[in-house]
Amino acid sequence: MAKEISKAVVKRMPRYYRYLGELLDDGVERISSKDLSKRMRVTASQIRQDLNNFGGFGQQGYGYNVKYLYDEIGKILGLDQKHNIIIVGAGNLGQALANYTKFEKLGFDIIALFDVNPSLKGKDIRGIKIHMLDELDEFCQENRVDIAALTMPKSKADETAHHLVKLGVHAIWNFAHVDLDLDDEDVVVESVHLSDSLMRLSYDIVQKRS
Amino acid sequence: MAKEISKAVVKRMPRYYRYLGELLDDGVERISSKDLSKRMRVTASQIRQDLNNFGGFGQQGYGYNVKYLYDEIGKILGLDQKHNIIIVGAGNLGQALANYTKFEKLGFDIIALFDVNPSLKGKDIRGIKIHMLDELDEFCQENRVDIAALTMPKSKADETAHHLVKLGVHAIWNFAHVDLDLDDEDVVVESVHLSDSLMRLSYDIVQKRS
Repeated sequence: MAKEISKAVVKRMPRYYRYLGELLDDGVERISSKDLSKRMRVTASQIRQDLNNFGGFGQQGYGYNVKYLYDEIGKILGLDQKHNIIIVGAGNLGQALANYTKFEKLGFDIIALFDVNPSLKGKDIRGIKIHMLDELDEFCQENRVDIAALTMPKSKADETAHHLVKLGVHAIWNFAHVDLDLDDEDVVVESVHLSDSLMRLSYDIVQKRS
Repeated sequence: MAKEISKAVVKRMPRYYRYLGELLDDGVERISSKDLSKRMRVTASQIRQDLNNFGGFGQQGYGYNVKYLYDEIGKILGLDQKHNIIIVGAGNLGQALANYTKFEKLGFDIIALFDVNPSLKGKDIRGIKIHMLDELDEFCQENRVDIAALTMPKSKADETAHHLVKLGVHAIWNFAHVDLDLDDEDVVVESVHLSDSLMRLSYDIVQKRS
């Protein structure tokens, strides 16, 4: 079923999940597409259309069961499973990611950081150990690693990504300022390009001024 | 002219700018849409179509002048101007952003960080001072602030964003795990939702496995 979902809908799913989580926290059990629409600032028809992709969890006149919808979207997003993450690059950004307790709540466990900087050797972030990069191979052989977050300079990112794939890591969360050349590899990549985001903001600023 | 450009094209512009910058670094003066297409992994016709939006900088048979195209896209993205950024929230993520020298090269100068944590008082990141949050009003009155990056917990993000708008800051780079409620305000917002990105990666992992 989930295979036929368009990329645009998938992009919106995390946002639905986030809002439904907030409703749950607020103790809301049912919500109409109209109320959800107001809260999320998308049209009610868009919401109905999006959620219909998943077999439509709404009941006419009763609205959506928040907990059920939250769980179902969670399953579709793979959040009913645990994902082990390693962070390659334990600079500020890597450490910032390791400090997010939010990720754990979503089922993403950060199990190790790696760096080449000897001054970080033996240190840890919230009990998550910083290893030296030369321990990476052994670590990946001894532990299940589902996702590698690359928070390292772009010069080494591509090489490291290929090496990780060889070690059996099939998902890369890429923060390096480069598009990884992994098209032929059996791997999924999600990139967060901070400079690109800043440039889009800059474009909007110029547009607003003119 | 730039006003008519579609959102999809704008989203791709930073990537063009990034690749053209790399070509410049490599000493490449001219490039055909075909070669640029190979490098960027988009079709040559997509490239021609995208760049035609800006009056078309290519000459039939001669390809694109890399430097000219780089500069023109830079202007469209507002990168020919300086932008002053403040970072509100000097935790790991805020400090990571302050440490990116890349942003300066693009014309984004980080001029101050703010936090409520007294242990950060008087400290600095690469010479960029960390102020206490109660100095924010005075700072914004005395300095031109073009962009505020919000790297603070979501509970305070919305309130802080509204306060910043009142202080005359009309662009928000939002890292808080919340969609800011600023629709009625005269402000542009660009959000980086890290958890959403991680959930999309998780979705792709599940799809690949099934």
